[in-house]
Amino acid sequence: MNSQEFRRRGNEMVEYICQYLETLEDRKVTPSVEPGYLRHLLPDEAPYHGEDWDRIMEDVESKIMPGVTHWQHPRFHAYFPSGNSFPSILGDMLSDGIGCIGFSWAASPACTELETIVLDWLGRAIGLPDDFLALKAGSKGGGVIQTSASECVLVTMLAARAQAIKHLKQQHPFVEEGHLLSKLMAYCSKEAHSCVEKAAMICFVKLRILEPDSKCSLRGNTLTKAMEEDELQGLVPFFVSTTLGTTGSCSFDALEEIGVALQRFPGVWLHVDAAYAGNAFICPELKYLLKGIEYADSFNTNPNKWLLTNFDCSTLWVRDRIRLTSALVVDPLYLKHGYSDAAIDYRHWGVPLSRRFRSLKLWFVLRSYGISGLQNYIRHHIELAKRFEQLVNKDKRFEICNEVKLGLVCFRLIGSDKLNEKFLSGINASAKIHMVPASVNDQYVIRFCAVAQNATEDDIG
Amino acid sequence: MNSQEFRRRGNEMVEYICQYLETLEDRKVTPSVEPGYLRHLLPDEAPYHGEDWDRIMEDVESKIMPGVTHWQHPRFHAYFPSGNSFPSILGDMLSDGIGCIGFSWAASPACTELETIVLDWLGRAIGLPDDFLALKAGSKGGGVIQTSASECVLVTMLAARAQAIKHLKQQHPFVEEGHLLSKLMAYCSKEAHSCVEKAAMICFVKLRILEPDSKCSLRGNTLTKAMEEDELQGLVPFFVSTTLGTTGSCSFDALEEIGVALQRFPGVWLHVDAAYAGNAFICPELKYLLKGIEYADSFNTNPNKWLLTNFDCSTLWVRDRIRLTSALVVDPLYLKHGYSDAAIDYRHWGVPLSRRFRSLKLWFVLRSYGISGLQNYIRHHIELAKRFEQLVNKDKRFEICNEVKLGLVCFRLIGSDKLNEKFLSGINASAKIHMVPASVNDQYVIRFCAVAQNATEDDIG
Repeated sequence: MNSQEFRRRGNEMVEYICQYLETLEDRKVTPSVEPGYLRHLLPDEAPYHGEDWDRIMEDVESKIMPGVTHWQHPRFHAYFPSGNSFPSILGDMLSDGIGCIGFSWAASPACTELETIVLDWLGRAIGLPDDFLALKAGSKGGGVIQTSASECVLVTMLAARAQAIKHLKQQHPFVEEGHLLSKLMAYCSKEAHSCVEKAAMICFVKLRILEPDSKCSLRGNTLTKAMEEDELQGLVPFFVSTTLGTTGSCSFDALEEIGVALQRFPGVWLHVDAAYAGNAFICPELKYLLKGIEYADSFNTNPNKWLLTNFDCSTLWVRDRIRLTSALVVDPLYLKHGYSDAAIDYRHWGVPLSRRFRSLKLWFVLRSYGISGLQNYIRHHIELAKRFEQLVNKDKRFEICNEVKLGLVCFRLIGSDKLNEKFLSGINASAKIHMVPASVNDQYVIRFCAVAQNATEDDIG
Repeated sequence: MNSQEFRRRGNEMVEYICQYLETLEDRKVTPSVEPGYLRHLLPDEAPYHGEDWDRIMEDVESKIMPGVTHWQHPRFHAYFPSGNSFPSILGDMLSDGIGCIGFSWAASPACTELETIVLDWLGRAIGLPDDFLALKAGSKGGGVIQTSASECVLVTMLAARAQAIKHLKQQHPFVEEGHLLSKLMAYCSKEAHSCVEKAAMICFVKLRILEPDSKCSLRGNTLTKAMEEDELQGLVPFFVSTTLGTTGSCSFDALEEIGVALQRFPGVWLHVDAAYAGNAFICPELKYLLKGIEYADSFNTNPNKWLLTNFDCSTLWVRDRIRLTSALVVDPLYLKHGYSDAAIDYRHWGVPLSRRFRSLKLWFVLRSYGISGLQNYIRHHIELAKRFEQLVNKDKRFEICNEVKLGLVCFRLIGSDKLNEKFLSGINASAKIHMVPASVNDQYVIRFCAVAQNATEDDIG
């Protein structure tokens, strides 16, 4: 395809996307296909000769779309939102057009610098302390875009691990590192995202999963007690992952309590995973939910969830970028450049070496909507959730199972888990609405999340 | 921005991308900016009110572009190619429009199934044994798209680590796992990509970096000797990462020799990193370079390097998908679905939970170019490299430093490393051509890589 044809096909794709999104509610939310459906529709091997574009797009509509779960559908209320907006799509288009790989500053200076600046913009907008911003005078911190919250949790745990091992090594220079590693203990709540468990598996460290209180919030004294017990056993607490806005029920760990408690355990890394809820802190009236952030070493939120930015765009800030990167630096000659010492090289901030120009889409979203536009979007979703909560409360057959602070409502039929499973299965089988379950206080609940950018009250009525 | 405006802005962006790529050679290849240039051009914080799209795009041209290293420029010869093509851009546009997150089969069946099918297509096209294809009867293998080759190496090392620890645990049930971990030894050549070292740091395992032969190829007996020495020391070899097409000089480890040698070390995982060169195996005349693949447990190549597909698209195949995923499975209720047992859930194949619909762009590329079109593209780059090699050979001041099998030529001025450094700095300072150095046989060499899709002989003359 040459640029002349791309002019035509690009415009057709723009039109296809518009029509897809404009008529989405005519489609079923979820597909009615069984595993293996697509292999019966596509050939076993790639074509030898190139095919005409029209044929390819026909297959998109006739073969791919019937197997798509429509995350942008106004009646998709599962998981959390998958960020999407026109300015964000334009940002990805431009990133693809430029097609640069920003692993080091020199590999494309604008790619690195815009990321640093836009992360400062967003960090400031959601109310992070100045220490987390790269361009504040005297700050040692900064932000980076990662592929996913899983990666944010992993790299901060890796940094904490490196720091803890280094410290232990000074105290016990002749002990084998594997033995030191076996002493390390990380902590999170039972309500933390499964990625904390995955990160601990990868880091090969023990993870103690703690019971939250009845509001699904991890409390400071629960943590302190566990850490003291473990220290008595000769173990070394090194990392705590807290959550603001859990996946199950959008509950909030008692960050301030935990931060205060950790003062007695110097050197323990405090991470805050606010993948969903963190985006909401862009609203002044919700910033109280961030209380305690002054104790944290790192913080992540996903604009690709709730800030109208397409996946992948998971933003991570750290208070001390040297502590982060020291766990990940490897430096061969073919990646060195004249400014290696003076500039940020984001390849040391995460697992992958190569990186897209992801800050473009976030920059486009922040500028095109402005902070006020994004606040309105967040507030609209919260209103929809509140409205849904009211509707549930009016119906005596149901009960609400979480404190509805943001866009997620957990509810259930009063009765057994089995009854609720059957009820949810029936709803999902209709393919008119899509929701997923969670376990809250060991009960099966149904999660309703406000998701679509332009959903109205009718979509939730 | 509503869809009406997106129709207009989308078309403008298509036009911007076309003009950017059509007039790229009028721009300097590399920017002449210093670290921090952009912070002086952009405000300190995000705008409160949304801005007009035209203003944003003005800033793209006046503030971003002056800081971009133009990887698609016809005279960009640094690193390896950053894959790009119009069908691939269209695939990303569609992926963004759909905006689904395919962490499990149920989260969007087409997203998972197309990935499996397209990876079978590509695996077959480059000549992988049937064991690596998911849809072959009796096969336990399959392919997956990862974010980067770094992630491919990391997850295979994690899988090998899990397998080795499980095995050791059976032999020594009462030994602390950290101690078992400290016995594990991974291997690679000095010429392997730095991501192997990073993966070993993350996995917390020892890595023995071996000397290749004079052609920068790791040999079977070098590996055997090292592994035997280590076993005598009580260490446990568990993972070997070989490279087909090294970053420094596109050299090839002696895969078949290594595979044969490893027969004496059952249980050691053999990975093949062919991030760049693997794409070339789509040409029948180059498949001989894959010899020995029948011994491998896993293989990765990056279509986002040399197969006209935009980053990120790093393809990994394994011979045994259960062995891969068993290192990474965590399974909370909110991610379970009715087909959890029958279908592939790609979240267990890598670090991130969430994933884009990345197979669309690879599918578009494979269909739009066809295998023959991709072969022509690869062959064209190899011809350009051969032509460049001839030009260097004609000039007595220079010498060629690698065996030019694919698109990479390593050369140097006959003389000191310092002289070559100065020479390369001069070239790069001109901003007319861009190349990067590497160290080959402990000598500073200059890498020339054929990169641009439509580069002609004039661009290298």
